[in-house]
Amino acid sequence: MLNFKYYSPTSIIFGKESTAGLGAQLSPEIKTVMFHYGGGSIKQSGLYVQVFSILKEKGVKVIELGGVEPNPKLSLVKEGITLCRENQVDLILAVGGGSVIDSAKAISVGVKYDGEVWDFFMGKAQPQSCVPLGVILTLPATGSETSPNTVVTNEEGLLKRGMKSDLIRPVFAILSPELTLTLPEHQTFAGVMDILSHVFERYFTTTGHVDVTDYMCEGVMKATIENAYKLRQNPDDYDARAEIMLAGTIAHNGILGVGRLEDWASHRIAHEITALYGTTHGVTLAVIFPAWMKYVSEEQPEKFVQFAKRVFDVSEADFRSTAEIANEGIRRFEAFLTEMGLPKSFKEAGLPSDQLDLMTEKASIFGALGGYRKLEVSDIKAIYELAL
Amino acid sequence: MLNFKYYSPTSIIFGKESTAGLGAQLSPEIKTVMFHYGGGSIKQSGLYVQVFSILKEKGVKVIELGGVEPNPKLSLVKEGITLCRENQVDLILAVGGGSVIDSAKAISVGVKYDGEVWDFFMGKAQPQSCVPLGVILTLPATGSETSPNTVVTNEEGLLKRGMKSDLIRPVFAILSPELTLTLPEHQTFAGVMDILSHVFERYFTTTGHVDVTDYMCEGVMKATIENAYKLRQNPDDYDARAEIMLAGTIAHNGILGVGRLEDWASHRIAHEITALYGTTHGVTLAVIFPAWMKYVSEEQPEKFVQFAKRVFDVSEADFRSTAEIANEGIRRFEAFLTEMGLPKSFKEAGLPSDQLDLMTEKASIFGALGGYRKLEVSDIKAIYELAL
Repeated sequence: MLNFKYYSPTSIIFGKESTAGLGAQLSPEIKTVMFHYGGGSIKQSGLYVQVFSILKEKGVKVIELGGVEPNPKLSLVKEGITLCRENQVDLILAVGGGSVIDSAKAISVGVKYDGEVWDFFMGKAQPQSCVPLGVILTLPATGSETSPNTVVTNEEGLLKRGMKSDLIRPVFAILSPELTLTLPEHQTFAGVMDILSHVFERYFTTTGHVDVTDYMCEGVMKATIENAYKLRQNPDDYDARAEIMLAGTIAHNGILGVGRLEDWASHRIAHEITALYGTTHGVTLAVIFPAWMKYVSEEQPEKFVQFAKRVFDVSEADFRSTAEIANEGIRRFEAFLTEMGLPKSFKEAGLPSDQLDLMTEKASIFGALGGYRKLEVSDIKAIYELAL
Repeated sequence: MLNFKYYSPTSIIFGKESTAGLGAQLSPEIKTVMFHYGGGSIKQSGLYVQVFSILKEKGVKVIELGGVEPNPKLSLVKEGITLCRENQVDLILAVGGGSVIDSAKAISVGVKYDGEVWDFFMGKAQPQSCVPLGVILTLPATGSETSPNTVVTNEEGLLKRGMKSDLIRPVFAILSPELTLTLPEHQTFAGVMDILSHVFERYFTTTGHVDVTDYMCEGVMKATIENAYKLRQNPDDYDARAEIMLAGTIAHNGILGVGRLEDWASHRIAHEITALYGTTHGVTLAVIFPAWMKYVSEEQPEKFVQFAKRVFDVSEADFRSTAEIANEGIRRFEAFLTEMGLPKSFKEAGLPSDQLDLMTEKASIFGALGGYRKLEVSDIKAIYELAL
């Protein structure tokens, strides 16, 4: 196990009708709130009206900024920063999924920074302060509701980049599984893939002696997979929705990655597909992960053997070599993706195959990727090709 | 899954030589620190000198209060409260195991309360503010380094009682596994039992649909048991010490218990043995848990079947009934205790058997115990008898 620091101070309010708990999270010092959201779904569901009436009841001034799109855009972030400064906003309330939360996080650090907020995403600056952030989550997927991460797309150059700081962990996160009962199938299972990917990026490591976190990773994967099957059968299953929502938060609040080298190559590789084609984040992860797994396990099958045995119950006795066991685990994961209606290749996703060089170039802009196995430019290109 | 709130804001600094990170945790506002510790072990190990020199280097005034005994006493807590008030202490630094941390927590809430601090332990008052608390942990066991709990013994009446408040979660916890390399065998494995007990109290529940946390509980149990075996073989195994230390924190920071009814009957039942005879907390838990398991599983074997299969790899095919599977899990847990050198009965612990009525009376002072199965006075007595 490696040395680590861990700090996850977000207050989680979880369960049925927990949105009603919003009022209790607003201390008297909060006079002005920026209500940040995406499209019309929170208006259709009644959540918009509910949030507004709680804010009104608390007597806070509300500044509205809707219109966050999937893969949140830098231009809207800049608009939010200006609005927050003009109105001296005390709290940004993000109501939505990961895109809304990520957009709110970028705004929250941009407000207090004299330079261009994009500096944080290009590693040119580290945030020193921020406007506090509260979350009402409507889509379990990115784990952004308690994570220190945000990912934003700069429309100039189609660059999708992330930043990380404990400062942007939300102050509170309200998680109401019943808000997710009406999610379309596509979003539900893209979210499931996103959740699994956050565990994968931590689980596949060369760091030894990580028993506690390995077992916890495997547990979160098993619970996610089992409950995804339940939701495939019955989207109205509240209990399965609750398990997926909790898994989504734990998968990315950092506890599963303590004391280990993480990977994150697949995220970088997948990001470039999304930046180019606007493909849903979870879908690009479904496209890239099987290819990444096959590519890196060929030289380093060890952790994939453990994955196969412990997560997919592959029996050692049924196979002749570690490579075969590792491959069977990957095969079962691919079968799971198919059963969830997710594409596992460019072809299945209906994506063109003529931009691999551009994507490779952009994915490797900061050099080699990955922790489990270091991926140079040629490796990245090979993974895109394997995913076709 | 039940609705829940979860808040665990402690900054964790974990790993080799992490004690050196103490200075970075002391903000300039901290002018006076109460350095709270137990006996001479931190003086022998050099930790006392190291902590003192970091505090001196930061230029803070140090108020010393040593002498915390296992099962911390109310009288010392009161002394600490007086010292903190007289010296306007800004931070209490607890350096030691659970007893030192629990004593510090009681002091931290007592300082800011006009009444008797024991009121909190008798449920007569809830703390509203406290002196911030930092921890350097020397013994992984109680999980008190990030938990909202403290347990103190009132010498008048030999009452051992707990209280719970998110206020007393430490601000920071420095976890250095190498500090635990010199722990005597007895403390190491009593600590292991304490860690397991915190998972048990959450794991054995009647709440359904708790897949994520069930799997995580099972993972923490497996990692704890496997690494305890490693330490039994080789007490100098840093990696195993690190796993046990991390397991100890996760077992009791609350995440394993979210969304479920917890039990805690065994802790109450065991506490009375400790209050009467001063027996190490982890040892009394080893004495009580097998008896509790046998007693409650007789009517409700379900969760014990899962425990047997998932934690101790009991194969369903080898047994004829759920009761047999459940019993085999308990039997394997008892075998583990024996292999760790822990007693699993009053007899093995060398405890007298003539005070069962008194202990039963005191354990049931607040009424029936337990969540998995509700235990009335007669049940509690029966468990003590089963543990003889």
